[in-house]
Amino acid sequence: MEHDITIKQVTTGKAKPDYNHLSFGKYFTDHMFVMDYNEEDGWFDARITPYEPLLMDPSSLMFHYGQSVFEGLKAYTSQKGGIQLFRPEKNFNRMNISSDRMNIPEVDPDFLVDALKQLLHIDRDWIPVEERQSLYIRPFIIATEPALSVKPASQYKLMIILSPVGSYYAQSDQMSPVSIYVEDEYVRSVKGLVGFTKTAGNYAASLKVQQKAEDLGYDQVLWLDAIEKKYIEEVGSMNIFFKINGEIITPALNGSILDGITRDSVIELLRYWGWNVHERRISIDEVKQAHTDGVLEEVFGTGTAAVISPVGRLKWKDEELVINDNQTGPVSYDLYDTITGIQTGATDDILGWTVPLQEQET
Amino acid sequence: MEHDITIKQVTTGKAKPDYNHLSFGKYFTDHMFVMDYNEEDGWFDARITPYEPLLMDPSSLMFHYGQSVFEGLKAYTSQKGGIQLFRPEKNFNRMNISSDRMNIPEVDPDFLVDALKQLLHIDRDWIPVEERQSLYIRPFIIATEPALSVKPASQYKLMIILSPVGSYYAQSDQMSPVSIYVEDEYVRSVKGLVGFTKTAGNYAASLKVQQKAEDLGYDQVLWLDAIEKKYIEEVGSMNIFFKINGEIITPALNGSILDGITRDSVIELLRYWGWNVHERRISIDEVKQAHTDGVLEEVFGTGTAAVISPVGRLKWKDEELVINDNQTGPVSYDLYDTITGIQTGATDDILGWTVPLQEQET
Ligand SMILES: Cc1ncc(COP(=O)(O)O)c(C=O)c1O
Ligand SMILES: Cc1ncc(COP(=O)(O)O)c(C=O)c1O
Repeated sequence: MEHDITIKQVTTGKAKPDYNHLSFGKYFTDHMFVMDYNEEDGWFDARITPYEPLLMDPSSLMFHYGQSVFEGLKAYTSQKGGIQLFRPEKNFNRMNISSDRMNIPEVDPDFLVDALKQLLHIDRDWIPVEERQSLYIRPFIIATEPALSVKPASQYKLMIILSPVGSYYAQSDQMSPVSIYVEDEYVRSVKGLVGFTKTAGNYAASLKVQQKAEDLGYDQVLWLDAIEKKYIEEVGSMNIFFKINGEIITPALNGSILDGITRDSVIELLRYWGWNVHERRISIDEVKQAHTDGVLEEVFGTGTAAVISPVGRLKWKDEELVINDNQTGPVSYDLYDTITGIQTGATDDILGWTVPLQEQET
Repeated sequence: MEHDITIKQVTTGKAKPDYNHLSFGKYFTDHMFVMDYNEEDGWFDARITPYEPLLMDPSSLMFHYGQSVFEGLKAYTSQKGGIQLFRPEKNFNRMNISSDRMNIPEVDPDFLVDALKQLLHIDRDWIPVEERQSLYIRPFIIATEPALSVKPASQYKLMIILSPVGSYYAQSDQMSPVSIYVEDEYVRSVKGLVGFTKTAGNYAASLKVQQKAEDLGYDQVLWLDAIEKKYIEEVGSMNIFFKINGEIITPALNGSILDGITRDSVIELLRYWGWNVHERRISIDEVKQAHTDGVLEEVFGTGTAAVISPVGRLKWKDEELVINDNQTGPVSYDLYDTITGIQTGATDDILGWTVPLQEQET
């Protein structure tokens, strides 16, 4: 797939928000990338335009049947100078995996990495320079065909929008453990459904339970499998890891959880460091038993937003397991430090994960 | 909830499509109903406007996390004169049930029935008069807040759009049995998820399997339960009924299937006629056994689009069960005839299901 990207820039950029008070995904840069699809032309009209509202027919299939996929990744100002991305090809490959399940036509990942670089270049002065700040990148595809029949759309729109984001943690140099509520009534997905994809409907279905967790005083939800209500799946937008008796365990990719890119990076890094990492089924009972036995040493979530999110408290039925005295453990800390270090150029990119944004002419 | 509805009409209406060649949900009338929601005002600015595209921010939550609900019902020209609706309050009540699960603020059903009547009155010359044609009504709510955080939106848009539709069957006076593929790998939903709601994501997830069924030469998919892959759930957009040895069986409402309004009407009508109707679990093995024993007398789907859809062939693993010689059975036929008769005023409304559109000033 080869496309020319036409570029239409704003004449005057928007005022930038206060970078010390960025909430997640609230402010958007001056430009966006857009590309359309129809059956005749395939993907066409790749363009960078001012960030602006879309005109959507009320019957657009997305509004009714939710056919869509999305991704989330970040661009960082490197301490060595320049801008860099973290494993962007993984995101665009995963987008195709999601698209395949959702009947959406695939897109050449290399082309999208290139389009993204061009977009970033144009909006480069939006990319935060402060440590722990970054530019969040949201590629997504929606079904735009105006029609009410339940069928794969014949028209789509792919967009990439950009949003400067602050540190996930209030004090940027300190990770604060989160509290997690283990849900045992509602479920997130099941084998044979679309849990392994990043599609809109997965997230809509989770809102009620996220609210329930917050009402009960917990930060996030840990999902169990839908069939036995026993095996650990993942958190709202994180995969989860357990350090038990000196070994690391994370749920295997089973068709219902997301193949997280941070999860993959953590596994690779831990193995590089010499840890035993097991990708397998792990039940909530096993976690509880480990806690009782005093060998549940660390629990942490992994995801693009927080990178590493130590879990300090785990609520399961009537019990609350406090982990590592509700403090960030050493493995969580080392992972966070190393991965964010690689992302921001403070640490050597020992595993070849970063992709620099080449300087180019506008 | 009391709202004034402001009305802005088109000066000249669109040209109408050829009513003998209407595909489903392809043409829309001149007007639509719109209402917005924000946290301060609740639902506000109820209005009837020309049918026109929406301006949506690319970060609108609907595009990313799919928070939405929808409904589907029909208006009919009565053979006794005037326009009538079929149990519309049931649709708006069900929309609230869906909304509750999807964290969407509820809307007064009576107000919506009234708003719908006003809209229909304005677009009344779009309502088909031919037998078996009708005006399909699509109410829906989407999350419009521009934000990328996964949370219930603080802004929504509710719309009602209208589309004239032809008969579901090619020859309008003849029901043709459909062929159905029983899926045993992919699933539609599971208890604890959102299968009982009409939310966009349920339909997006089903597209791949619908395609698979069509590729194998079948019209539609019959879903089995996600846990034991054994119990019958429902069809793509229909509930399902079996007539076995003189009794009628339909899967019970179990949290993962939709509480269909046609299903409810069929149960009520069959009981009124004196049939034994059982709402219970029914396995695919039981259906197969009944076929082997020669007592699988009829199978039919129920839904707003087709009303009654007789099933002639059922493909399950390596076997194909042919039902009633691939002919429409007498119960399917009587149900279709009576319900469509009630809907179109050809038959007395013995169960009090229709709601007339009062004549009113424009
Ligand atoms: C459901 C879910 N699980 C896990 C993750 C973590 O994936 P990643 O590390 O690629 O951000 C995310 C966020 O992307 C997610 O949405
Ligand atoms: C999944 C599903 N099941 C069943 C039905 C039938 O419901 P109703 O009879 O209310 O149209 C529909 C269509 O509305 C549906 O989408």
